Amino acid sequence: MDFEIGAHDANSSARTGRLVTAHGVVQTPAFVPCASRGVVKACSPKDIASVGVQAVMCNAFHLLIQPGVETIKQAGGLHRFMNWPGVVATDSGGFQVFSLAEPKNITDKAVILPSPLDGRQIELTPELSIEIQNQLGADIIMAFDECTSYPCSYEDAAGSMERTLRWAERSKAAHSNSEQALFGIIQGSVYPDLRAQSARATADLGFPGYAIGGVSVGETEAEMFAALEASLPELPEAAPRHLLGVGVPVQMIEAARCGIDLFDCVIPTRNARHGRLYTWEGIIRIGNAQYRDDFRPLSEQCDCPACAQYSRAYLHHLFRLQEATAWRLLSLHNLRFFVQLMEQIREGICTGRLDQLRKCVAAITTY
Amino acid sequence: MDFEIGAHDANSSARTGRLVTAHGVVQTPAFVPCASRGVVKACSPKDIASVGVQAVMCNAFHLLIQPGVETIKQAGGLHRFMNWPGVVATDSGGFQVFSLAEPKNITDKAVILPSPLDGRQIELTPELSIEIQNQLGADIIMAFDECTSYPCSYEDAAGSMERTLRWAERSKAAHSNSEQALFGIIQGSVYPDLRAQSARATADLGFPGYAIGGVSVGETEAEMFAALEASLPELPEAAPRHLLGVGVPVQMIEAARCGIDLFDCVIPTRNARHGRLYTWEGIIRIGNAQYRDDFRPLSEQCDCPACAQYSRAYLHHLFRLQEATAWRLLSLHNLRFFVQLMEQIREGICTGRLDQLRKCVAAITTY
Repeated sequence: MDFEIGAHDANSSARTGRLVTAHGVVQTPAFVPCASRGVVKACSPKDIASVGVQAVMCNAFHLLIQPGVETIKQAGGLHRFMNWPGVVATDSGGFQVFSLAEPKNITDKAVILPSPLDGRQIELTPELSIEIQNQLGADIIMAFDECTSYPCSYEDAAGSMERTLRWAERSKAAHSNSEQALFGIIQGSVYPDLRAQSARATADLGFPGYAIGGVSVGETEAEMFAALEASLPELPEAAPRHLLGVGVPVQMIEAARCGIDLFDCVIPTRNARHGRLYTWEGIIRIGNAQYRDDFRPLSEQCDCPACAQYSRAYLHHLFRLQEATAWRLLSLHNLRFFVQLMEQIREGICTGRLDQLRKCVAAITTY
Repeated sequence: MDFEIGAHDANSSARTGRLVTAHGVVQTPAFVPCASRGVVKACSPKDIASVGVQAVMCNAFHLLIQPGVETIKQAGGLHRFMNWPGVVATDSGGFQVFSLAEPKNITDKAVILPSPLDGRQIELTPELSIEIQNQLGADIIMAFDECTSYPCSYEDAAGSMERTLRWAERSKAAHSNSEQALFGIIQGSVYPDLRAQSARATADLGFPGYAIGGVSVGETEAEMFAALEASLPELPEAAPRHLLGVGVPVQMIEAARCGIDLFDCVIPTRNARHGRLYTWEGIIRIGNAQYRDDFRPLSEQCDCPACAQYSRAYLHHLFRLQEATAWRLLSLHNLRFFVQLMEQIREGICTGRLDQLRKCVAAITTY
């Protein structure tokens, strides 16, 4: 992987870049939709290519459970298994430790957590997570980390951050696929000094890229940005930075202003399945009665398959029927909005109009 | 609507034809997928066009409930509402009377049946069914009929058949859209003499096409074909004949041999959602463990979006995840099989090899 920085924003730390991988180039800042189980929910890989998605984020833990690493390895890796020609990143499973494992089952040595499929106990270690990710063959992989919940005491946050550092070292030592870029992960909860320490020490270990983890877990927006602002100055300028789990449009613009290059989140697709649609004219809740007889497209400005083919009235009808076709078309619409939003962010950086974009986006989206 | 008969099978009553409508030509024998609520489940209208579907069958009763006739009328009719450029047929709601109304609520004058949406009592008459269908604007519409259950006494079948005749007369009188072809419906349960009488009397009323109703409701295959063979000789050769609700591949070939031109059924899409897939090499149950590591396409001979892009292993994975994407891709695969099956039937009629096709299809499909 190669990362070439392009333009810098005159009024912030934002920058554009080109992330060059064996599976193509990602123009940054970029939004990377979640395909945790090897599929962006309700969409086919061909579908998401059609709306301009450059990269997807899969999850090593979920894929370990189903279909299993052996199947994907036999297929020739994740790209081939999914028949997705673009860039793939995998998350390490650290977040699933946070959401699924009991505290008593988390030690420095290993984490034991139940399979969401059948409750079977699974032991994960940094070495195993990296081995799995090496075999899945994504272009970008993540160090195994411990994500803290919110609220979290200073002592717990410090202990967890230090464990994440030890795991980062073990992850790096275990990594054995030179075609994959291993990103180190910054933790430290909402404590700026822990965040700074985590970023400094992770940078000292040396990774081709870095991810900020443990955000968007219930903390305030101010706390999230304080954590971000404490972390980023400690990371090497030249390396790409990924903000894990953030996908609220205004937060992405603000984080890009702090110097974030990559984002992943389920927001566009989950909101779509709940009938909440982004347009440059404002949010549409397609299930509302006002759209029953509205024969305009969702947005005159959008070229997604939903807007190109179907009216609000038809999409309202399909959504009220709880039709899978609604979930697909609406997901593709929101993904297209996110792709266009990132294009606007990149253009805003080049033209110095990022602040203007932030105000415009804040006015049309509240979440 | 115009119907031009092409070739006749040398060994049976099968024929090919061209059903010419304002929305294009349907090559017959043809399979018409069910889009009861204005959508073929899990597929978009654009999707089904891509696999060669020529016509869809919507349901007046379901569309009356949701989104309502007014919405579709305002959209400019069903074709525009769905953005489906092909041919549309609508069923009258007679089958829903059979499945939803209590016997005490069925009189000659009207039927009262509960809305599946909210239980609200809805009064349907032949006049209202035709008025709804006139407003929906399908190319082919159906007379309002009474469908008997199975088993059904001779007396009940006779009474119901006679009521269907009276309703056919009222349906014809109420029909006021000259761009739509109104089909009369033959009833009479499993009693050949009642079927013949129904066909004769319906033909005497005079319709541009005829549908055989009340089959595939639990009777044996022998009973169904006896009913068919009693009905068809009484119908005018020159008019198209639709067999309502039949979609088992071998039954369709056999019915084509009796002289049926059109079929509609939920079988290909419902089976797909249950992981049961048709291929020219045999049935595939994609959820079975044997497909977990099978990286071949469903069928080497198929050009559907599933076969063109994805492996059995990936489709197995998506199906086990209960992913909407699996339902869509698998539905499109089965629809493509049905489209190709009908092409083979038409070719079999032209070349006198329908019997051979029947044996081949019987060997690869059991349902």
